[in-house]
Amino acid sequence: MHKTVSVELEKDVLAANRELAEENNALLKKHNIKSFDVMGAIGSGKTLLIEKMIDKLKEKRLRVAAIAGDVAGHDDYDRFVSHGIIGENISTGKECHLDAHLVQHAIEKLPLDNIDVLFVENVGNLVCPVDFPVGTDERMVVISVTEGDDMVRKHPMMFAFTDIVVINKVDLSSAMEVDPEILARDVKKVNPKARIIFTDARRSKGLGELMAAMGFKE
Amino acid sequence: MHKTVSVELEKDVLAANRELAEENNALLKKHNIKSFDVMGAIGSGKTLLIEKMIDKLKEKRLRVAAIAGDVAGHDDYDRFVSHGIIGENISTGKECHLDAHLVQHAIEKLPLDNIDVLFVENVGNLVCPVDFPVGTDERMVVISVTEGDDMVRKHPMMFAFTDIVVINKVDLSSAMEVDPEILARDVKKVNPKARIIFTDARRSKGLGELMAAMGFKE
Repeated sequence: MHKTVSVELEKDVLAANRELAEENNALLKKHNIKSFDVMGAIGSGKTLLIEKMIDKLKEKRLRVAAIAGDVAGHDDYDRFVSHGIIGENISTGKECHLDAHLVQHAIEKLPLDNIDVLFVENVGNLVCPVDFPVGTDERMVVISVTEGDDMVRKHPMMFAFTDIVVINKVDLSSAMEVDPEILARDVKKVNPKARIIFTDARRSKGLGELMAAMGFKE
Repeated sequence: MHKTVSVELEKDVLAANRELAEENNALLKKHNIKSFDVMGAIGSGKTLLIEKMIDKLKEKRLRVAAIAGDVAGHDDYDRFVSHGIIGENISTGKECHLDAHLVQHAIEKLPLDNIDVLFVENVGNLVCPVDFPVGTDERMVVISVTEGDDMVRKHPMMFAFTDIVVINKVDLSSAMEVDPEILARDVKKVNPKARIIFTDARRSKGLGELMAAMGFKE
């Protein structure tokens, strides 16, 4: 009995989220904002990668904004706005993912007419965000070779429902004894259409390829 | 209205989980099994650290078992049983944490009279397992310097409710430009009683200290 109630509630919640996500996307599109939901485990390098993309997009005179989602604190928000862009912070409290409702409130606070590109950095883990699209044009998952070569196999759903997969910290592949090609192969198995990019964000490697995969010309 | 229902359901679920966790602990104690719930983000090194502890415990002629929890697959289970110990695998499907009920079913399958130490490896993330004790004597969180020096601040609850914190991969501190002492200091702020151990599991450093923190004499 209990089980039935909770399954029905879950369906309700997911359907309501999808509806709000569509509203968010329509609003962003109306303002010609290209938007990306950036997901990935803690320590995969999401924040640094977004920071690097912010700088590259600014060089192209594009106006960038970023919404930072975390369980607690505002470390990532502080890092984003230090690049001179507009930011919003979302603390989820106990929730392990953002949802379209939280993101809608953050979007409402942004000056949408003055933004060309929006990053939404999701809460760091590879499980919870899967079922909760927030309304961006594209979803991107950042993984790191330091997480081991079994991590795609362990989280197939996360990779099945994403557009871009960034395999980061490839400079540490040999130190970690992890072959990035194994990760890429496992991604292709569950998602043949995914655009897969190898990066070393700290040393700014692979960023041009990532820009192209995101639809920005060099 | 919707919100109220879901909050009440959540309370029910947490209370039911706590009850089952107490049952699990009573059963394990009755069989003189010392038990540890090992939590931590993906890539923190939980599995390798447990493997190293298995070997050290086997040297002391202690009989070890391990329950491997993951969203999908059985990579960690395979690694555990390759050390000649008894194992059980739990695939949670979409859930981002183990719970006392799942662990109870795994425990039921174990030959409890022939086990001295039980590891339960939780699903890899620093958010979901907090509220779901599974019934072990102690909870251990493994973190890695590769996750950045802000990761304790970002997940205060996880560190507030744990007994042992392992800061792993300290060999990579300088390459990652992360000071392990900052992580330790942040842990102490939310949990002054936590036993904090620095390890480099790959090179078997700090394992003696961890054995002692877990209550095993060298």
